Amino acid sequence: MQENGLVERVRAVERHFAEMPRRARVVEVGPRDGLQNEPLILPTEVKAQYIALLSEAGFSEIEITSFVSPKRVPQLADAEALCGQLRFSEKVRYTGLVPNRRGLERALAAGVRSIAVLAAASETFSLRNIGMGMKEALEEIRAVCQMARSEGIRVRGYVSTAFYCPYEGRVSPTQVRSVVESLLEIGVDEVSLADTIGHAAPTDVVQLLEVLAPVLPLERTAMHFHDTWGLALANVLTSLELGVATFDAASGGAGGCPFAPGAAGNVATEDLLVLLQGMHIETDVNLAKVTEASRYLESSLGKLLPGRYLRSRMEIS
Amino acid sequence: MQENGLVERVRAVERHFAEMPRRARVVEVGPRDGLQNEPLILPTEVKAQYIALLSEAGFSEIEITSFVSPKRVPQLADAEALCGQLRFSEKVRYTGLVPNRRGLERALAAGVRSIAVLAAASETFSLRNIGMGMKEALEEIRAVCQMARSEGIRVRGYVSTAFYCPYEGRVSPTQVRSVVESLLEIGVDEVSLADTIGHAAPTDVVQLLEVLAPVLPLERTAMHFHDTWGLALANVLTSLELGVATFDAASGGAGGCPFAPGAAGNVATEDLLVLLQGMHIETDVNLAKVTEASRYLESSLGKLLPGRYLRSRMEIS
Repeated sequence: MQENGLVERVRAVERHFAEMPRRARVVEVGPRDGLQNEPLILPTEVKAQYIALLSEAGFSEIEITSFVSPKRVPQLADAEALCGQLRFSEKVRYTGLVPNRRGLERALAAGVRSIAVLAAASETFSLRNIGMGMKEALEEIRAVCQMARSEGIRVRGYVSTAFYCPYEGRVSPTQVRSVVESLLEIGVDEVSLADTIGHAAPTDVVQLLEVLAPVLPLERTAMHFHDTWGLALANVLTSLELGVATFDAASGGAGGCPFAPGAAGNVATEDLLVLLQGMHIETDVNLAKVTEASRYLESSLGKLLPGRYLRSRMEIS
Repeated sequence: MQENGLVERVRAVERHFAEMPRRARVVEVGPRDGLQNEPLILPTEVKAQYIALLSEAGFSEIEITSFVSPKRVPQLADAEALCGQLRFSEKVRYTGLVPNRRGLERALAAGVRSIAVLAAASETFSLRNIGMGMKEALEEIRAVCQMARSEGIRVRGYVSTAFYCPYEGRVSPTQVRSVVESLLEIGVDEVSLADTIGHAAPTDVVQLLEVLAPVLPLERTAMHFHDTWGLALANVLTSLELGVATFDAASGGAGGCPFAPGAAGNVATEDLLVLLQGMHIETDVNLAKVTEASRYLESSLGKLLPGRYLRSRMEIS
């Protein structure tokens, strides 16, 4: 009986798993990242109700909208109106994406006290998605952060295309590190590393964090995976093994339009929670209440969302 | 700058990943496990063509059908006719599921030279699914294996509900170990540990393999994950970390009827291949050709399959 390999490997993996974070923080991005590509424009009161349901689920942070040009993202054109309709809970940080100083002014006027900014790690994606080159975008972020800091506003910094770019292919980790260093120097409170097109594998996660390790503290690191090829939870697992404890997700896996060109959703919050629960990692989020929010969103959009747990629940009930 | 945790953790995970298998074997189970619950009965020639396309994709083993009672599984009632229509490739092992001695006789008469047998690790599931208690089922498997060995037939032994039972909940690893020991004593060549309902998390995989380590050699271990909650690839990753190198999968994630009660598909072969490729783990299987087989199956079934890569490919093309 060749028990050789397995016994030792089990011990190694057990040691490894034992060092994972005991608690994780889930940042719900459904109302922004999940909705922004939806062609059916939802009424503002529906969005407010969706966010209210998410607030009841226990998230400490929800990204609610983007103060971007209404022409670029018609779905989120009602950012101010939405903020006016929200019943803000004391327990939740409501974050607005802010592409530039004009966006920050709008966000502040709407009462938003937490913002996210967007940098890209590939020049072509930056030009096409943000409308500015990487350097220009970082200068704009610097200006936004200076304004935000003077107002006592928390700033989250996304790094888009931190693994792969739809135009340039694999993005070098050293290029990502340069963007991360700029964001930290500018003073963002947290860096969210985004696999924008969902092509990263666990080895990519290890390689990126190896290069970032000397400059990025774990407690300021978040991972933002899209589930294009179903690898998101494997990447979450690897991130947990590396000690990362903050993950972005969208309820129901919103953002993915499984039958529409190019769109691929965030990892579904429910699926992430099922993984975390299965691993005995605590969160503040109630799975059943997230599911309720996702079902409300489904009925409002008039279509089913792709999250695996959400779909399986409908099978069971 | 608190680089403390991350640098060390990256090193540990890198060491860990470096010890993973360099090559993996994928056992394609779509024609049997993927199809058995499909209500639309496919013509035998369609199944033969599906299997021919899979054979061209490079699999070393394909589970083609089950010699079960046609009343129990109407979709697979044409097992003999299918074998008659197959163009057997020298490079592929074509495996038939065999529930009992009668099934083995049918399989042998149909020219099948590799079989799979099915044991369950929970009594209730065994009674309801196999129609025999666990003890009786193992005695039947013993008789089947004796006959098979005398004919020089290879035997794969499934352990159903190796993690969770739909009736009994969590299945104790020691109970699974007892079934695995019986199968090994009976003389099966390979044990495939099945997460039948797809509820296992990576920690469950570690716990089970910890208990099996003293009795089950790695090279005779296969993992069979269903993707009910999207955890399959995370479980594959953990299995790889433990040194397991054989995985069952169904092309396109067939077997899942996302909108039908109770059914949840195997992990999609394409998604598994994408993970393995991303991890630089070699297989003999051509991803594009698997996709072709899945598309053929989709057009034959008149519906889309849930595999993430398959869906994303349709977005891209």
